[in-house]
Amino acid sequence: MTRMVEDIERVSVGLGERAYDILIGPGLLAGVGEAAAKLGARAVGVVTDETVAGLHLPTVERSLAGAGLAFDTVRVPAGEASKSFDMLARVVDGLLAARIERGDLVLALGGGVVGDLAGFAAAILRRGVRVLQAPTSLLAQVDSSVGGKTGINSPRGKNLIGAFHQPSLVLADTATLDTLPERELRAGYAEVAKYGLIDDPDFFAWLEANPRAVFCAGPDRIRGIATSCRAKAAVVARDERETGDRALLNLGHTFGHALEADVAYDSARLVHGEGVAIGMAMAFRFSAALGLCPEEDAARVERHLSAVGLPIRVSAIPGPIGGAEALFAHMQQDKKVSRGRLTFILARGVGKSFVARDVDPARALDFLRRELAPAA
Amino acid sequence: MTRMVEDIERVSVGLGERAYDILIGPGLLAGVGEAAAKLGARAVGVVTDETVAGLHLPTVERSLAGAGLAFDTVRVPAGEASKSFDMLARVVDGLLAARIERGDLVLALGGGVVGDLAGFAAAILRRGVRVLQAPTSLLAQVDSSVGGKTGINSPRGKNLIGAFHQPSLVLADTATLDTLPERELRAGYAEVAKYGLIDDPDFFAWLEANPRAVFCAGPDRIRGIATSCRAKAAVVARDERETGDRALLNLGHTFGHALEADVAYDSARLVHGEGVAIGMAMAFRFSAALGLCPEEDAARVERHLSAVGLPIRVSAIPGPIGGAEALFAHMQQDKKVSRGRLTFILARGVGKSFVARDVDPARALDFLRRELAPAA
Repeated sequence: MTRMVEDIERVSVGLGERAYDILIGPGLLAGVGEAAAKLGARAVGVVTDETVAGLHLPTVERSLAGAGLAFDTVRVPAGEASKSFDMLARVVDGLLAARIERGDLVLALGGGVVGDLAGFAAAILRRGVRVLQAPTSLLAQVDSSVGGKTGINSPRGKNLIGAFHQPSLVLADTATLDTLPERELRAGYAEVAKYGLIDDPDFFAWLEANPRAVFCAGPDRIRGIATSCRAKAAVVARDERETGDRALLNLGHTFGHALEADVAYDSARLVHGEGVAIGMAMAFRFSAALGLCPEEDAARVERHLSAVGLPIRVSAIPGPIGGAEALFAHMQQDKKVSRGRLTFILARGVGKSFVARDVDPARALDFLRRELAPAA
Repeated sequence: MTRMVEDIERVSVGLGERAYDILIGPGLLAGVGEAAAKLGARAVGVVTDETVAGLHLPTVERSLAGAGLAFDTVRVPAGEASKSFDMLARVVDGLLAARIERGDLVLALGGGVVGDLAGFAAAILRRGVRVLQAPTSLLAQVDSSVGGKTGINSPRGKNLIGAFHQPSLVLADTATLDTLPERELRAGYAEVAKYGLIDDPDFFAWLEANPRAVFCAGPDRIRGIATSCRAKAAVVARDERETGDRALLNLGHTFGHALEADVAYDSARLVHGEGVAIGMAMAFRFSAALGLCPEEDAARVERHLSAVGLPIRVSAIPGPIGGAEALFAHMQQDKKVSRGRLTFILARGVGKSFVARDVDPARALDFLRRELAPAA
């Protein structure tokens, strides 16, 4: 079967002189060379991880060569541990060795880790080289490849070091999702559900009615991903640097990041999307506990996330978890802390999330204690 | 004698929402706390080097404490070697440990190295924290603290890794220049002379007539520094990201950087400003050799730089220097290389510099050979 043009969805991110398109559909990686050439690049520095290289690098290299572009590839180990200063230095050095110049292009081929690391490397290489994001995981396609947040982790917390660096193009080849382990696909789905929970109750209802939509190849998957990208693009266009509204995208992330920090980013125990799923369920339970949100809406969130196999409670994480105080301390080292005050994303219901900057720390701590109680 | 208001010059950098002021005059460091408080910071992360800390940190800490600000200081070794990935990681970690948040301030207290390093650390800390530049060297006051270029060196070249990150304020305390070694002061002077050579022949003539103006305390020094800052601010406002005109500021830098790289950034042999002085003299000799510029103008440049004690020939650098081919190779790894073509800043005369993107590499190489010939 030949690829049909109708298979491809286009989402535009309206950021003035930094505006760019997200293309979503199966088979796009085969056209990455043509896309890079159209952007005026002469050379392309591919950054990818060992796993993705084995699956998709041949397609990409064939396409780049076919478009007459010079290219060189920097490979990093797969996994969150690559979001480190050491690996950043190695990637930047590899791109310099490849003589990637200001008019050229860095191609981030991989999931969220590669996108964040390569995007950051592009941001600081010669004080800024363009990046083409080619996300190969669901998480990266619906979230991290869009919006320009790039960065690495510090031993003091996740994503504490980085840059805002918008891509020049995002190519989300949905066929790559068929090579993704089920657990990764599920984890990415947490971010899809998030967009419904933030401000699109119809989308959430559609996901409830079609829980396999995004998991299986076909037009529904593309629709789900495009809807997610469109939601993210709208928020990013309103608030590129997260001075206000963009914080909504952190629904589930304040709790989630604290859990990830607590397991020391051990992906065998918890991957980002799972942390977000538990975090979103917690945000809704916390909202309900504060009397802001109907219990029924919190239950709906739990039901849908559970239906697709995502965890909704801290107790789902294998192994020991720190106490409420430890989690609270992690939350206070979050980037989004302002004047020592925590920012929570809470909800008045499904699709009715809001930024809360004045939550009583004592109530948050009390909520964490109840969440972590053995009976919970 | 009390400090008089007339002593302070203000230069505004017109960059829209990133606009900021440069204040120039003696004794400004004593008011840094007040300035930081006015910017709305709650905490200040001071970055400085061991030498500057010994001279000026007590004044700064007194001022910050007096303004009721929390502060913490990260010290790095003095010298260009601190512009490394390792030191960047240490500075960022120190600022995270000090819990510098997005609304807070990084204070770069020192010369060009500290300004570039601290400015870059601020750019990537939590994806961007504001920086107040408090330059304590002439070079930093007239050049590196203004315009937002920050960065570190790579083993493959100088300033190849960095960010554009405009400061929120520049406090150029001219009294700090009295603690500067004569060699440093002279080196910084190369950048002052540069502004005359680029497009301000009257300023160059004034410097020729007053060769000690910037070297001695007093209104002439402030005038010379303010004129330099104004020149830089104008170029930066026109072309923040160096897509065109801003390249003029690199007069003398393409040759200079190659020389610095050739001595492996050994400041005992060559500091940046000395490289720029030799590089400017070379740029004028090259322009004359190409028939673009009267020999007399090249001779004027040589005379004035020599008069203040700056080197004008490669042979002034102690120790062995690589051949023409080696210098040429260094020039090709410059950030400003585009499509493999070198960009030179050449001149049609004093105050008549221009960006030349089509210089025949063979003629450049030939020129280098003549410059490096033992007889030269």
